[in-house]
Formats: sequence, structure tokens, C-alpha cells
Amino acid sequence: MVRTVAVIGAGPSGLSAVKSCLDEDLHPTCFESSDDLGGLWKFKEVSEPNRASIYRSLTINISKEMMSFSDFPIPADFPNYMHHSKILNYFRMYAEHFKLLQHIRFQVKKKKNCLASNRGKWEVVTEKLDGKEETHVFDAVICCTGHYTYPNLPLRDFPGLDTFQGRYFHSWDYKGPEEMHRKRLVIVGISNSGSDIAVESRKFAEQVYMSTRRGAWVIRQVSDDGIPVDMKYNTRFVHILFQLFPMRFFNWFSEKKLNAMYDHTMYALKPKHRLFSQIPVINDDLPFKILSGAVIIKPNVTEISSSSVFFEDGSVADKVGIFQQHPHPSDFPYLPANTLYKSGHRVGLYKHVFPPTLEHPTLAVVGFIHALGAIMPQAEMQARWAVQVLKGHKKLPSSQAMVKAVEKDTKSMDYIVSKLSPLQVDFVSYMDDLAGEIGARPSLLWLLLTDYMLFKEVLWGPVTAYQYRLTGPGKWDGARQAILTQFQRMFQPLKTRKVEEVNMASSGGLFKLSLTLVAGGAAVYYMHIREPTLLPNLVSKLFPQKM
Amino acid sequence: MVRTVAVIGAGPSGLSAVKSCLDEDLHPTCFESSDDLGGLWKFKEVSEPNRASIYRSLTINISKEMMSFSDFPIPADFPNYMHHSKILNYFRMYAEHFKLLQHIRFQVKKKKNCLASNRGKWEVVTEKLDGKEETHVFDAVICCTGHYTYPNLPLRDFPGLDTFQGRYFHSWDYKGPEEMHRKRLVIVGISNSGSDIAVESRKFAEQVYMSTRRGAWVIRQVSDDGIPVDMKYNTRFVHILFQLFPMRFFNWFSEKKLNAMYDHTMYALKPKHRLFSQIPVINDDLPFKILSGAVIIKPNVTEISSSSVFFEDGSVADKVGIFQQHPHPSDFPYLPANTLYKSGHRVGLYKHVFPPTLEHPTLAVVGFIHALGAIMPQAEMQARWAVQVLKGHKKLPSSQAMVKAVEKDTKSMDYIVSKLSPLQVDFVSYMDDLAGEIGARPSLLWLLLTDYMLFKEVLWGPVTAYQYRLTGPGKWDGARQAILTQFQRMFQPLKTRKVEEVNMASSGGLFKLSLTLVAGGAAVYYMHIREPTLLPNLVSKLFPQKM
Repeated sequence: MVRTVAVIGAGPSGLSAVKSCLDEDLHPTCFESSDDLGGLWKFKEVSEPNRASIYRSLTINISKEMMSFSDFPIPADFPNYMHHSKILNYFRMYAEHFKLLQHIRFQVKKKKNCLASNRGKWEVVTEKLDGKEETHVFDAVICCTGHYTYPNLPLRDFPGLDTFQGRYFHSWDYKGPEEMHRKRLVIVGISNSGSDIAVESRKFAEQVYMSTRRGAWVIRQVSDDGIPVDMKYNTRFVHILFQLFPMRFFNWFSEKKLNAMYDHTMYALKPKHRLFSQIPVINDDLPFKILSGAVIIKPNVTEISSSSVFFEDGSVADKVGIFQQHPHPSDFPYLPANTLYKSGHRVGLYKHVFPPTLEHPTLAVVGFIHALGAIMPQAEMQARWAVQVLKGHKKLPSSQAMVKAVEKDTKSMDYIVSKLSPLQVDFVSYMDDLAGEIGARPSLLWLLLTDYMLFKEVLWGPVTAYQYRLTGPGKWDGARQAILTQFQRMFQPLKTRKVEEVNMASSGGLFKLSLTLVAGGAAVYYMHIREPTLLPNLVSKLFPQKM
Repeated sequence: MVRTVAVIGAGPSGLSAVKSCLDEDLHPTCFESSDDLGGLWKFKEVSEPNRASIYRSLTINISKEMMSFSDFPIPADFPNYMHHSKILNYFRMYAEHFKLLQHIRFQVKKKKNCLASNRGKWEVVTEKLDGKEETHVFDAVICCTGHYTYPNLPLRDFPGLDTFQGRYFHSWDYKGPEEMHRKRLVIVGISNSGSDIAVESRKFAEQVYMSTRRGAWVIRQVSDDGIPVDMKYNTRFVHILFQLFPMRFFNWFSEKKLNAMYDHTMYALKPKHRLFSQIPVINDDLPFKILSGAVIIKPNVTEISSSSVFFEDGSVADKVGIFQQHPHPSDFPYLPANTLYKSGHRVGLYKHVFPPTLEHPTLAVVGFIHALGAIMPQAEMQARWAVQVLKGHKKLPSSQAMVKAVEKDTKSMDYIVSKLSPLQVDFVSYMDDLAGEIGARPSLLWLLLTDYMLFKEVLWGPVTAYQYRLTGPGKWDGARQAILTQFQRMFQPLKTRKVEEVNMASSGGLFKLSLTLVAGGAAVYYMHIREPTLLPNLVSKLFPQKM
């Protein structure tokens, strides 16, 4: 029987793991090697080796309602896209509210292979600042060290780098644009942080090039009507449509919409992959920066000389510095060898949490995930499930079945799984799946019959994590209210100058009805033409389970 | 008979004036007080008193094809929205190509009231760096000193400013965001430069507030399909629609479209005025900066204390610096008193060029204008007309008729004429009007009958200045080709990474036909409902004149 749990890391995943343990009367001890909570979100003016690092101006690209923990909404007056300082602030509030701090030991290093397993129990060897080693024994371990712990500089693969006389560095060593003053900069690879840095560096740099082999779809955070893009489209309704109709319909439709904003071919961005086969770049200002020549999109880098970078098309950028941005997904150096195994490019973890080959299910990994959605609610959901398993309330399948499931997952992954993005899952499917494991998945049919107002918001509104506190273990009485007021919290920080008010919530009814009809009509028409066999699944998918 | 012309100022207006003089065999002498050409566009790290000044990162908000002089297209590989350094580069190319430099005297100061009129001739008294005064006599003078020569700090109107201990300054003293490091900043008034500075300051400032009494419509430079907004909508076709149908139809339609991008009410931006009654703010990134709380929109400032700013709604911004952005339209201190008079908020100038009350039409003002379009082509058109008048090829109406026309202009101004925007005209109407004066206005009917390919581009394409070189004095043989290739020059700088090509030009035919039908249909329907008497004007407006 598990009573004591070691939680490794006090970032958002670690915090939610500690909180989940406390909710189920377990005794967590969290080991954090730095002097503060927040993990990645704790900004440091100087990067530390082997620690994920952010830049001064970083603003998250997930809206506050979508990144909120499930039973602790982000304050109404916080902005919708939060600066890292605000995010850290929120984590502190969370830790204080749920009294997590007393369970965290700061500035405690984990030694390499510090964990040893003994009949399901775990010895954890740690080292304090004064060099003193300690050994603790726990009934279980939850690893929350995140998925970005090692900077990846594959530039070493480019011939000529050894002769390069400019500066080259990784995004983790980037802190602010002022260091780019009058420099020429090549950013290798297109990504969210790379685009961000390109856009802000341009104010100082003489020229910014962004080299991309594959191209990218670039979307805006300010979506239709000005709603955050994830609140607008990461809805259960859209999710159901995605389940029902072929992906190529959505690709076609959404790429058309996106190209109507700015033609990705004209902007030299167009990738070979379809929109929904990889996580897009989210940047509102990049298109203008391209149009104004501030950022020049280039193909792949082929060679580097003392002061120049050569691109695939034969063009050259002279007198540049090089900046590379892809962190390499971490491994777990503190775990005993052979605890984990590889499945394709991924680490073999059952539902991204449990190593399937251990005899006892007393080791869980939380927050080692990547989706078109925030990590925080997903990590929290993983932690809730993991704790139910540790407590023995939920059972895992046989080792063989889990290994099989991992292989199946790896194969069926919707997103392009590559070395650079091996952790991707579909946000709502994944949340629903784990919630289903512990009985916390909301039932649309039940809501339709018992609480129509809530049903509408759960179906039409964004899939915020509060939906997974309506029922099951960890049910939260505030969940219903939190869902019904999520758009109020979205509007709140914008009310800074009095103008004639519009009530978006009430005026949206007819619009949404029309949208359903139009979307449904288009989809049915498409199906009628292309896939006449899919309709029968409609009802069963819409109402997947009873409560 | 006019032979010698003094041109005051070597900014873009002055350059085009010198060039227009040379085209008509006049002898221009251009007096420039600084040591370089370019006027406003010559960036200086330190602002000089009484000289318009720009900041380090400034990018123009007019696309290159729309700002190009009429017979000297901006190079194809220049970006669509140009950084000030590129703009200065273009002016240098222009000056070199047309051999203007030898006619410019740099570092020559004009004395106050340095001009004196004597029977239509002008004495110009100048002072060199060594203090030596010189007097020159010219047959005519063209004033090209621009319309932003005095910074306006109406903050002095706010009670309490004298006790304010933070820094306050004018946009002309702003050079770059790094000076905002960890500061809190209130920007008074919403404008293009203010929004720009708000957006870029945020990367350094702790908080940016933007106070606006009236609010603003904010549009994006990256318009539909990614085309520059002015190339997309500043077309002759749209202009004709605007002439035919009531403005409130366009206001309704365009505000709806704009709010679908981001609801101006929700974003606290919504102004009391309609979209087309004032020049909008152009900023692609401001909406996201508002959504992420980086820029907080506030109402009018009512009071200032030692370290705080109080707003109309009772809210307070603490520990701030204040930044004010509206330059005051200049007057002309070097002109003799009573040369100019006021008409409402405007300077009384016939078609914004000629003072109507002078006995001899030997004084012209060029570039003292503001429209939803670039100043360069408008100043150039003014200069072309002015030179025709100076040469005696074109006559001005009687003084009385001109005064009457000025009064009529002032009254009928579409835009809200206020102290802050007294120079606004409708771009196409104004260009057509002046071009009509000198016989350089393109005739759609003639083009339809003789050159269908060109007709299509002139009707559907952006109203680039090349259109005014197809005919009349100053006809340029390259004009037709320049018009037919304007979209190629737009696409050129974006071709930096090979992707599957799309041919926008050829695929657009059907789309444009549909657009005509839809726009026409909507407009006719609207008219049918609201204004059943307007249709008869259609044909005469579409084909306004013969060649």
C-alpha cells in the first residue's frame, strides 16, 4: 500500500502532483533542485546549464482559461495571454492556497541514477548544497522534470561550423533583443520561441533570417471577434466534428481560412505537411514582419563558413550570428538504467505516464507531454490518474497489454512524430481518456438531461479543465460556476475603458445555431460526396457514455 | 515669366518639387537646413529642436507601391513596408537618378520671415553655418517644409503636471524601447506612432498604458490573403463604389468586418466616430498586446500628481513616465506675416497648394497634406500642378473663387477636422482632381476601348501614382509597364524560400468578377432599401471624362 510519494521537480507538473497526492491522503515529498517553484517559468537573467530557460519578454501562447488548473481558476483580472511573471505568480497562489510549500524541499540535487527500486519501493539519494547526501525511501515516485531539459544544438551537423567566427547559441541562452543590436541573425528552424525572438530581435538586429526546412502553418492568437484562438476552437463541439469527419476536410477548410489571412505560399511559409498534422506556430506579428522584410524566410542551412551561412537555394547570409532553437526532449538521468524504453521516437510510457514493464506500478511520469493545449491541465490530469493507480483504486492492464497499447499509440499518432516532437497527443481526446480512467469525464447526455445551461457551455465552450471536476474523485463544487463564468473572466481584463457594452454571451446564441447548421451542412455535404459510410456513428459519438 | 524657383526643404516633397521644376526647364535651388536629404526620414540618434524626428525601428505604414513616386518605382526586391533606412535609400536613388543633388544647398538656414515678396518675386535670406547671410531673388517659391515641424505637448493643459516627478516627453524624443527598461509608461493619445511605441516598449517596460479620449479603429497592414491593406482596398473600383453609395453603408460593412477580426468594444478601443470619418490606426500587433495585457487601454487623463496619472474613470496609473505623441501641424515662420490665413482649423490653401489671396501665383506649398495614403505621390502631384501654374500653362481661378473653394473644402471635409488632423483629404479624389488640372488623369473609358489589360489593372488594382503618368505633361513611357508589374514587385521580396507557386494574378479573375457581382448586388440592394434616387449617376461616375 502506497503512503509516501517522492515528487521530482516543483514546476507546474510537480505542484499538481503534490496537490493530487494530498487530495488522496498520500504523503508527498517534493525535491526541487533550484531555490524556487515554477520550473521553466522561473525567469533567470542568466541561464543555468541543463536547465530549461526562458527569455525576458516571454508570454505564453495558451490563454489563461485553457491553462488554468481544474479547481483553481486564474484570477479574472489577469490578462488572457500571461507574461511569465504572471504565470509564476499564479503558481505561487496555487501553492499557497493548497498549502503545498511545506511539502517541497528546495535546493536538493538528485544524483544520477539516484533512484533505485526495491520490490516496488524506491530509494532516492539526494545531495544538499553542502554536499551532504541523504537517502530516503518512498513507496512511489512521480517524475515531474518536464520535457525540455537539454538544449539541442544540431548545428554541429552542419559542415563548417567549426570555422564560424560569429556567435552561435541556443534559445535558452537568449534573454532579450538588446543583445542583437546591429547584428545579423540566422534563426535555424521555425517554432514558437524562434518566431517570437525573430519578431522582437528585429527591433535591434540589422536583419533577421529564419531558416526552415519544412515550413510551418502560422496562426494568430487573436482569433475571430478577438477571442483567444484556443477558447474559440478548442471546444468539445469542434472536437466531436473532428471525430466524425475526415481530417482532410478540416485541413482543407482551415488552411483555406488561414491562407485568406495571409497566403502561406506567398509568404514562403507553406509547409509540406497539412495544418492538423503538426502543432502550428502561433504568432500574431510574424506575417507583418515578413511583409515588411524585417524577417526573411529562408530554406534549410546547408553549410557554414567563417562568417556566412549558405542556404539550400544557393543564397547566402553574410556576417551573421546563428541562433538555434529546438530543445531536445529530456531523458531521465536520475532513473535506474532500463526503467524506461523507447517506442519509436517516443519514450515507452502507457498513456504517457506509466512505464509498462515494471513489476509494480509505483513509478509515474507527469508532464512529459506536448499537445495543442497547455501542459498544466494535462499534467494535473495525469497526476490525478497516477494517484488513483498508486492508491490501488484503479488498476493498470497487464504489462503486455500496456506495451501493445504504447506501440499502437506510436503508430496511430496524428501528428508527425519526429525527433523534435515525440510527445504529441490530441488535447481533448487525451484529457477525456485519462478522465475516463478515473470517472471524471463529463457526460454530455447527462448534462443535457439535467443542466441545459451547463450542457451548452460544455458543448460549445472551450474545453477548460473545470469540466473534469464536475464528477468523479476530486469533484469540485465550484466547477459548474467556473465553467459558466469562464468568458466573464476572459472579458474582465479588457474592461479598462468604458465603451458601449456588448453582451457576447447572450448575443451568440443565434450565431452558434447558424454555425452548427452551416458546419453540419458543409460536413454532411462533404461526406455525401466523399465518405458515404460515416454517418451512422453520429449519435454514439455525440453521447459517448453515461454517467 | 517664372524661371528661377526656390524650393524650401529637401525632404521627399522638396525632391519631387526640384524634379518637377527640372522637368519643365525651370531652375530650382533647394535650401535644406540639415546636412542630408530625406527630411523626416533621415534618422538621427539624438533629436534636434524644431525638427521632426523618428525612432530607430520605424517602418512606414504605406506599402511600397503606394508610396512610390510616379515615374520611379521602388526596386522590386525592396520590402513592401519599408524601414526608414530603406526609404532614405530610395530617396537617394531618386535624387541620383534625376540628378537633383546639384540643385540642393545643404546646411543653409532660413531666417524667420526670410521671404519677402516684391511684385510676385521673392527675396530669400539665408544664413550659412559660418553665420554669413545671403540674399537671393527668385521668381517663385515652393515651400516643402512638411507638416510636422513642432512637437505639441498639450500635457501642459493637465492640472498637476508641474508637480510630476517622472519623465515626460514627446514622441520625437523617443528613439528606442530600451530606454523604457522596467519603467511604467502612459502614452497619451492613440495614433500610429503611439501604438508602435506602445507595442515595442512593452518588451522592456513594466507596464504600458495608452490613454485615449476618443478611441480608434485599428486596422491591419496584412490584409486579406496577405496583400498590403492599401494595395487591396485603395483601388479605383472601391473609390467609385465610395462615390456611388452612401458612406454609412461602407462604415457599416467595414466596421463589421473589422470587429470580426477583434471586437473593438471588447478591446476597449471603440471610438464614437465611424470608421471612414477619421484616419484609422494601423497596427498589426496592438490587438494581441491588448489581449495579453501588455498594453492597457485607458480613458482620458484628467489629472497628474507627483508620480501618478489619474484617468477619467477614476483609475490611477502609479509610478509612470508620460509620453505624448501628437506633433502639431507646423506653420511657416519663414513666410512674411499675412501671406497665409486660417480657414477653420486648416491653413487656407487652394487645393492645399496655393494661397488664394496673393496677387501673383508664385508661392506654392507642397506636401502639407494628410490622407489615407502616402504623402510622396500626393506631394509630387502637387508639385507637378504647381510647376504648370508657375510656368503659366495653367491658370488659377480668381482670388475670390479660390477663397470660396477653400471654405467649401473646409466644410465638406469627410474626415473629422480637428486641431490634430486638419490636413486630411481623400487620396484618390485629390490625386484625380490635381491630375485633372494638368490633364494627367487616366480615362477609364479610353483605356477600356484601347487597352483592356491596362484598364483592368487601373480599375481593379491599387491607385498607384504610375496611373498619373499615362498621359498629359510628364507622360512616362514606362508607366504602363510599371502598372502591369506592380503586383510582381509586391511579390518579389517575399520569394525567399521556394514553395509551390501560385499565380495570384491569373487566378484572381473569377474571384474579382464574383466580388463585383456581390459588392454590386449588396450595394444595389442597400440603395433599393435606403436611397432609391442614386442609381442614375452610375455611368457618368464610372466614365468621368474623355481623354
